Amino acid sequence: MQKISIPKNSRLVSPTFGKKLGLVGGGQLARMLVIDAHSLGLESHVLCHHKDEPATRVTPFFSLDGMASDKSIKNFVKDLDYLTFESELVPTAILRWLDQNDLGSGRARPFVFPRPSLMLQIQNRASQKKLLEKFQIPTLPWLEIDKFEKLYEAAAIKDLPLILKKSFGGYDGYGTYLVDSKKMENLKSLFPGSFILEPRISFERELALGIVRNTKGQFAQLPLVHTVQKDSKCDFAAGPIDFPVSGMVSKIKKMMNAVDYVGILHFEFFLWQKKLWVNELAPRVHNSSHFSMDALSESQFTLHLKAGLGHRLTNPRQKAPHFAMFNLIAQDHTPLKNPAQLAGRLHWYGKSESRPGRKMGHINYFGDSMASLIQLGKTDRRRFF
Amino acid sequence: MQKISIPKNSRLVSPTFGKKLGLVGGGQLARMLVIDAHSLGLESHVLCHHKDEPATRVTPFFSLDGMASDKSIKNFVKDLDYLTFESELVPTAILRWLDQNDLGSGRARPFVFPRPSLMLQIQNRASQKKLLEKFQIPTLPWLEIDKFEKLYEAAAIKDLPLILKKSFGGYDGYGTYLVDSKKMENLKSLFPGSFILEPRISFERELALGIVRNTKGQFAQLPLVHTVQKDSKCDFAAGPIDFPVSGMVSKIKKMMNAVDYVGILHFEFFLWQKKLWVNELAPRVHNSSHFSMDALSESQFTLHLKAGLGHRLTNPRQKAPHFAMFNLIAQDHTPLKNPAQLAGRLHWYGKSESRPGRKMGHINYFGDSMASLIQLGKTDRRRFF
Repeated sequence: MQKISIPKNSRLVSPTFGKKLGLVGGGQLARMLVIDAHSLGLESHVLCHHKDEPATRVTPFFSLDGMASDKSIKNFVKDLDYLTFESELVPTAILRWLDQNDLGSGRARPFVFPRPSLMLQIQNRASQKKLLEKFQIPTLPWLEIDKFEKLYEAAAIKDLPLILKKSFGGYDGYGTYLVDSKKMENLKSLFPGSFILEPRISFERELALGIVRNTKGQFAQLPLVHTVQKDSKCDFAAGPIDFPVSGMVSKIKKMMNAVDYVGILHFEFFLWQKKLWVNELAPRVHNSSHFSMDALSESQFTLHLKAGLGHRLTNPRQKAPHFAMFNLIAQDHTPLKNPAQLAGRLHWYGKSESRPGRKMGHINYFGDSMASLIQLGKTDRRRFF
Repeated sequence: MQKISIPKNSRLVSPTFGKKLGLVGGGQLARMLVIDAHSLGLESHVLCHHKDEPATRVTPFFSLDGMASDKSIKNFVKDLDYLTFESELVPTAILRWLDQNDLGSGRARPFVFPRPSLMLQIQNRASQKKLLEKFQIPTLPWLEIDKFEKLYEAAAIKDLPLILKKSFGGYDGYGTYLVDSKKMENLKSLFPGSFILEPRISFERELALGIVRNTKGQFAQLPLVHTVQKDSKCDFAAGPIDFPVSGMVSKIKKMMNAVDYVGILHFEFFLWQKKLWVNELAPRVHNSSHFSMDALSESQFTLHLKAGLGHRLTNPRQKAPHFAMFNLIAQDHTPLKNPAQLAGRLHWYGKSESRPGRKMGHINYFGDSMASLIQLGKTDRRRFF
């Protein structure tokens, strides 16, 4: 991968107020980006599917053209100054169009971050793995699997169980399959398809880290957090975790510099055999860093936007020794209660209805003892159900 | 004044998400209330004059019916669950309609806070003074003046200079006139009119304090701040100020209980002869408490809304020993710059244009030393002009 320089213009050096930011996607991550964009003086425009998505409640500017066609993105970007994404799971047609029409033609407007070609590379698990390996960032060994026969052969020579993951479109456990001797035949129906195969390890815990890089190559680093999963979704996160990351971070920065990454980049790690292994990358704001909204001097949303605006980045300051974040995940279609008493600070996503497994909001805590913050979170959370 | 009980219904005890909040006014205070209302799970509807006011940029729900008639407020409130104000300077016709149609008919919907009858009482300086005196809250001696002859007589027997203030509609120095022997005749054209007359004192400094009371009678208190004025507008504020306020606060709470005040109430004080004197009351969120957005565990906007929702109130925690807030006030019609480097956190108001004396945004700071925060604020602020 070669380093491509960003088209430079004065806007990036000293942007004026009222510039227009486009957000592809209208979920809770877009919503929280929009809320912080207001404070920074950006006018936010959202491209999404429905008029009742979380981000359409926090700005009057949204486009419901859908997200599947070249035409909708072409209409959407025409007056924008900046464009970013709430998720890497953007239709490839949109990213390809942006890639060709942004960098291809040398147009400086809108400035798209992260670069669409990088989004394409990271949204596919196989090319994501190759990117990590190219920069010697530790990740589990893997195989590309496109036929059931190939899976069968691999299973015969590897230690079972293994994990089969869809190359495109998997998240929160969707698109992930356990491969063991009993269930092999059940997986036949998945093919033809595009997957990667990894060993299933007995990791000690899962950790996450966000690193931000701006258009000028300045970095900011968030604290390392412990993420606790339940039913393949983040249940709660707490930090900071005292584990040496400087070696990992210097490799990550080298990669981000080489690909000219702009924005926040998240790493989900397995802690296994006393080492960090990258489980996956997310080229965007991430659930694991929601604590930053209350526990740091700047949130992940502000940092991501500042990176794109070319504003100076410094490591955000922690407001207390420890912090925790608890997700509010609907169990069924029953609306959640709105408790009149909470120890933490609520961030509600404004979704139109509860559905099983749907993230409805989160609560943030900061204070002196991680154990007591986790206890507060557990007590608070019960009040919603 | 008699204590009137709020119509009780289950909504106030345990409100569910998606309830509709109405905001009368579309300026920066409404904007910041809306932003915090999003996190609390309220759907915010704004009643204002123009489509490009600060609050219309942060919600898709706004009504531009104007604010002058009974009819516009009647249409506006019909689907709302809660209603609050960004300013006490609401047309009296609207407050009177709300007063009669809220408390008069016993309707519980919307729940209006603070009570419209209190807004009427506080928006008039003469009745505001009477309210303070009734609860023995120290304030400067005053006279009601409605004729020039009365002003002339008062000036003859009092020590000059005096301060003449419009009873209704003054703010940030507008509607305030110096009365000294030279300028007496210039004031003749103000009459007939409704004014109060006060001595002009050489106070040592100006301080401000916000106190919040919820529907259940619980209180929260913000830290005392020092406000520094320039051209009759708040230039910057810093705190916390170490000055005994418990006697004052207990009188204030007694008053708030007696009138069943719901929401945040702000007090601007003169520190004079080592005592606090109330200069004026504001029944709303206030510029002097903007520091709370970054320096406290909960902002004044969240606290005001929680008070109306009947959520539990506790004193917000301070995230650092000291804090400061710097206003960004336009000097002329030149658009402000958007600096790429700031030590503090920017809160931009999204106003459509700069005008002399217009508040365009503010910057918040928190840290260990008040003097160094003030220095940072002064340095940062220069970058906008």
